[in-house]
Amino acid sequence: MRILLSNDDGVHAPGLQQLAKTLRGRGQVTVVAPDRDRSGASNSLTLSRPLRATTLDNGDVRVDGTPTDCVHLALTGLLSEEPDMVISGINAGANLGDDVLYSGTVAAAMEGRFLGLPAIAVSLAGQQQCKHYDSAAQVVLELLDRLRSIPLPSDTILNVNVPDLPRREIRGYQATRLGHRHKAEPVTRSTDPRGRPIYWVGPSGPEQDAGLGTDFHAVRSGYVSVTPIQVDLTRYEAMDIVSRWLTEGEA
Amino acid sequence: MRILLSNDDGVHAPGLQQLAKTLRGRGQVTVVAPDRDRSGASNSLTLSRPLRATTLDNGDVRVDGTPTDCVHLALTGLLSEEPDMVISGINAGANLGDDVLYSGTVAAAMEGRFLGLPAIAVSLAGQQQCKHYDSAAQVVLELLDRLRSIPLPSDTILNVNVPDLPRREIRGYQATRLGHRHKAEPVTRSTDPRGRPIYWVGPSGPEQDAGLGTDFHAVRSGYVSVTPIQVDLTRYEAMDIVSRWLTEGEA
Amino acid sequence: MRILLSNDDGVHAPGLQQLAKTLRGRGQVTVVAPDRDRSGASNSLTLSRPLRATTLDNGDVRVDGTPTDCVHLALTGLLSEEPDMVISGINAGANLGDDVLYSGTVAAAMEGRFLGLPAIAVSLAGQQQCKHYDSAAQVVLELLDRLRSIPLPSDTILNVNVPDLPRREIRGYQATRLGHRHKAEPVTRSTDPRGRPIYWVGPSGPEQDAGLGTDFHAVRSGYVSVTPIQVDLTRYEAMDIVSRWLTEGEA
Amino acid sequence: MRILLSNDDGVHAPGLQQLAKTLRGRGQVTVVAPDRDRSGASNSLTLSRPLRATTLDNGDVRVDGTPTDCVHLALTGLLSEEPDMVISGINAGANLGDDVLYSGTVAAAMEGRFLGLPAIAVSLAGQQQCKHYDSAAQVVLELLDRLRSIPLPSDTILNVNVPDLPRREIRGYQATRLGHRHKAEPVTRSTDPRGRPIYWVGPSGPEQDAGLGTDFHAVRSGYVSVTPIQVDLTRYEAMDIVSRWLTEGEA
Repeated sequence: MRILLSNDDGVHAPGLQQLAKTLRGRGQVTVVAPDRDRSGASNSLTLSRPLRATTLDNGDVRVDGTPTDCVHLALTGLLSEEPDMVISGINAGANLGDDVLYSGTVAAAMEGRFLGLPAIAVSLAGQQQCKHYDSAAQVVLELLDRLRSIPLPSDTILNVNVPDLPRREIRGYQATRLGHRHKAEPVTRSTDPRGRPIYWVGPSGPEQDAGLGTDFHAVRSGYVSVTPIQVDLTRYEAMDIVSRWLTEGEA
Repeated sequence: MRILLSNDDGVHAPGLQQLAKTLRGRGQVTVVAPDRDRSGASNSLTLSRPLRATTLDNGDVRVDGTPTDCVHLALTGLLSEEPDMVISGINAGANLGDDVLYSGTVAAAMEGRFLGLPAIAVSLAGQQQCKHYDSAAQVVLELLDRLRSIPLPSDTILNVNVPDLPRREIRGYQATRLGHRHKAEPVTRSTDPRGRPIYWVGPSGPEQDAGLGTDFHAVRSGYVSVTPIQVDLTRYEAMDIVSRWLTEGEA
Repeated sequence: MRILLSNDDGVHAPGLQQLAKTLRGRGQVTVVAPDRDRSGASNSLTLSRPLRATTLDNGDVRVDGTPTDCVHLALTGLLSEEPDMVISGINAGANLGDDVLYSGTVAAAMEGRFLGLPAIAVSLAGQQQCKHYDSAAQVVLELLDRLRSIPLPSDTILNVNVPDLPRREIRGYQATRLGHRHKAEPVTRSTDPRGRPIYWVGPSGPEQDAGLGTDFHAVRSGYVSVTPIQVDLTRYEAMDIVSRWLTEGEA
Repeated sequence: MRILLSNDDGVHAPGLQQLAKTLRGRGQVTVVAPDRDRSGASNSLTLSRPLRATTLDNGDVRVDGTPTDCVHLALTGLLSEEPDMVISGINAGANLGDDVLYSGTVAAAMEGRFLGLPAIAVSLAGQQQCKHYDSAAQVVLELLDRLRSIPLPSDTILNVNVPDLPRREIRGYQATRLGHRHKAEPVTRSTDPRGRPIYWVGPSGPEQDAGLGTDFHAVRSGYVSVTPIQVDLTRYEAMDIVSRWLTEGEA
């Protein structure tokens, strides 16, 4: 099995390096990841300038772009053989609910949607300093084993959040839907040392829809949360309403 | 009606300026837009550094960030009064099918999802040089009129693509789903003047699912395409499969 | 006379626009300037990516690079006719003493060193909000008139600082040397909203060598300071010492 | 002896790592260097956003800024003890003649001008792929030994270029002045894959003043070139001319 590994914390991040080491027991792993922290990059793709890819001493490839750039570049030109799947992570911190929309970790997995096996984004749901990267790496191995015995459709994208606990304290797996948050906290207004105003994007809003069945609830309860993610942004259930709305308007 | 207007082509782009002028007849318009072209920015949010907002002579606000940053900043701190809706565009070029995933224009509209009125992303589906921004601006006015007489749920996000034709040659409106493309074209390998390799992200892939009912088809047929967009990336129809898959794996 | 005008505050900065308007009475003015604030850019030249140049509605050219990039690009390919001189500014704030080393305004002028007339960097030495751009523009006109009647060697670079006063309150011109500052103030340590440490570069150090004959002194006394600047960084007066030092070492 | 080591090729560059290893035998070495290639950064200082400093596993500090930022940050806040000197390099490629004006390597050394010992910028003058970093590291050791026996004024800045040869084939040391080049080669015009024009900064111009006594000549002849560099950009020899010019103009 050939695995393309990426992330959004950068090629030197401990989560990625731990996962690379673990996965090398299972297949041929190629790392193509951003040269620095690109958290919050979402699916952004660099169109205004060319990308550079540097192969490091350990064989990992560092790209001066976003997580999406890394996987895009790997799959459309850099790699001589197409991998079977993309795994993205282990992210330092959860990617739950609405945060997924902004996540570079999840975006890197989404960019692997044309491959032969499901893509997996994996995040360690710890506070501040994450500890148990080994638990998250173990979870990825378990998911790969499961995939080998029971396949999933190749266009599946799984967003996996692992509680920051020793593996034996994690209570199991739950298939979840994404929860939702309230509107984000206000920006932090401040001034730079030259007296000019600056604005920092604030933290995510508090949980609003985080009950049973959501990814928030699973992680909070000590379970690995596994959410199938879609790439098609069409809101199908609103199509009839919009269709009628457009027609009535015309009549 | 208070309208927040943004885009991803930058605050000085002709599409945005034309739309601002047109909308000022209908309500109180505030422009908060990127200081330069941020096409392909998707929902990326700047977390690594603070943002700066500069008010220009004409009252428009220029932000050194992504489209998502602009709307986020406006709604969570910059504006004294919350607007009723966000409109994003007029983008110079279509945002159809899978492109929507990477689009900063659509992302800016998505960031307006907590407001009182639907958010609208509007793109002019022209080749190379777009011409009929006035048609797209007229289309936005028509949609606003329609919204006034027949409301839509406030969390609706509409991705609108307008054929680059005189308004009278446009055949009407169609509610559409997003089509799909094949995998993207390969990256363009090249070398810089110092002989080092560089890679340009290539064009989108050719249309794969672009038949009747898709946004591709509507625009190609001369209709304004209106697609309802969702923010919840959960792939609900795969939840049962994944749930069973996780359980079987455990048994 | 053909004048290439640039700056480091960005193409839309009031100082540049005022100067462009004033100079258009004297010659054919082409503006090629950064797309945003590039203060502190020094002579930095962009080698890692290509540059883009956009011609604005008013004919000004906006470049996504440093001040040095702008002038370099203009002189080595963008302009069809080589200009006679480069003028850079009017900078919003002084460029005195050691600050010159970091100044993008001065660097832009230095990049014009191969042309037929002296290059001029002009800064308005105001606090916080500069007011009298018209005084600085008037000073540039006066210098041009003087150059016409009494030429200077073509490789001369003049660093001009104008007190932020009405022209009639400015006491005259002084040829000056650059003063010196003490070491810069400490960086400002802080944390971002996510609790991670950040460091802001602090203000310049206090004046150390700022007496009679220096640019600091001239401006403080109400004079326009005019300092000839060199591009050759060789410290000639140390060459003997270093030569002996190397030889003794070998013996 | 406490040495602060930086460069402009980035913290992971082989030249810096080789020099760090060599210098650790002579003193207490702290590495504070850019997170990526910042060649051409000159003395640019980041004023528009805060800097981040990350301590790597090996103790090196990576900064998301320019070479000047790195040394500035280290000396004005990051380091608990002030170092005795700054060494910058080993740069992959020569820094000769006018190139010095744009060099981040030399700029990093210049930023160490307030310390107790001379600052040294060292570059390996090879074509394309540099080979003999060990020669350049050896040269730095020799210069340190020389400094120990025969001190130089503390504000001295030495720009050292080492031929890319085995140490035994290098013929010795020469104190040199900076040579000069002709105007740079034209920018390379091209188009990106979307058909839009782009411009790459071209190579430096050919040598114009590169005879005996210049750094060009020394390196070409197989010698280590050592040029004392100044921070004071005043062109003293032009002060009389300018002074008279200003006075005559007034009369």
